[in-house]
Amino acid sequence: MHSPAAFDLDRVIAFALELDKLKAILRRTKPTGLDRYENSAEHSWQVSVLALAMAPYAEPPVDPVRVVELLLVHDVPEIDAGDTIIYARGADTREGERHAAARVFGLLPEPQGSRFLCRWEEFEARETPDSRFAYAMDRLMPLLHNLHNGGQSWRENDVPLARVLAVNEAIAAACPAVWDRIKPEIESHFARNDRNKENS
Amino acid sequence: MHSPAAFDLDRVIAFALELDKLKAILRRTKPTGLDRYENSAEHSWQVSVLALAMAPYAEPPVDPVRVVELLLVHDVPEIDAGDTIIYARGADTREGERHAAARVFGLLPEPQGSRFLCRWEEFEARETPDSRFAYAMDRLMPLLHNLHNGGQSWRENDVPLARVLAVNEAIAAACPAVWDRIKPEIESHFARNDRNKENS
Repeated sequence: MHSPAAFDLDRVIAFALELDKLKAILRRTKPTGLDRYENSAEHSWQVSVLALAMAPYAEPPVDPVRVVELLLVHDVPEIDAGDTIIYARGADTREGERHAAARVFGLLPEPQGSRFLCRWEEFEARETPDSRFAYAMDRLMPLLHNLHNGGQSWRENDVPLARVLAVNEAIAAACPAVWDRIKPEIESHFARNDRNKENS
Repeated sequence: MHSPAAFDLDRVIAFALELDKLKAILRRTKPTGLDRYENSAEHSWQVSVLALAMAPYAEPPVDPVRVVELLLVHDVPEIDAGDTIIYARGADTREGERHAAARVFGLLPEPQGSRFLCRWEEFEARETPDSRFAYAMDRLMPLLHNLHNGGQSWRENDVPLARVLAVNEAIAAACPAVWDRIKPEIESHFARNDRNKENS
């Protein structure tokens, strides 16, 4: 398709500028070394690169570049719906994001709009190996942040060990090697914290 | 490869946390609606999504997911080398970035480290259709920002029309439809600005 209608180009441009809004959506995690919360746009980039680097250890195997497509669009509906901490997501959240996805991806011409919407739905449904691995990477990155910044978002949001393990077990299902490596670190982090509380 | 050495996993994790530093590298552009400069991490995400959406109009055709891989890693060496405005890049900049690329991608185990370094080198060389299109998208996004925020980064850095057209002609070589659409808008922007200066 070498001669798009000017109208189609204008729609892609409007969509690209709309993406700026994701840079204003703040998450609960502070990046290493920065005293501010990260936004969902920079997070989307970081998990995409993480997924490419971690893909060789996926089990079952995945198509790394498809995983990246899922991760690039997975948070776009937050432009309308906002970010919700994983430990507090409910049915309302999903409904709001579904409307948002239809609106934002609907800014695009076809076939791009439908393609992005399909990718977003695949990520949400988590029924394919690619989407399960993408979701695992989306869970892994804030875990790594917490393990390297003294559990900042766990502390600020009162998240207990049992909840961290339950929510993040999705990592075990898509990348068991990394879960085996990380789980004992999470447990020691909370054990250390409990000892500190007792001693204080 | 289902049972990576723990050592390899630790290297991927160290690399993922190192990526946080790109969130602190500021560019010259302010995102639409935000009164702050954007950082290179959120920019990398935005141009990757833009590339996926604009890929059907690439000429010659490109592999959209390969383009995305190039864009995801294209700014990573700025972690050490910093961002340089496109209108002021020289041989020193390239040398600094080459060292930075070797160090940062060298944090990864193999084959991931070499793969990322190859992608980064391909982007820099701009000899393949995929890399030329990726570069065009990297140029297009700040153009769109400037056209929608009154030429903010052009004004702040005293960039004249002739320089904007010369540097961004790379867009014409990889996505002529979008350049045909955008070039007259750039010219009217500068013509309007010149008239305003005369009248003030």
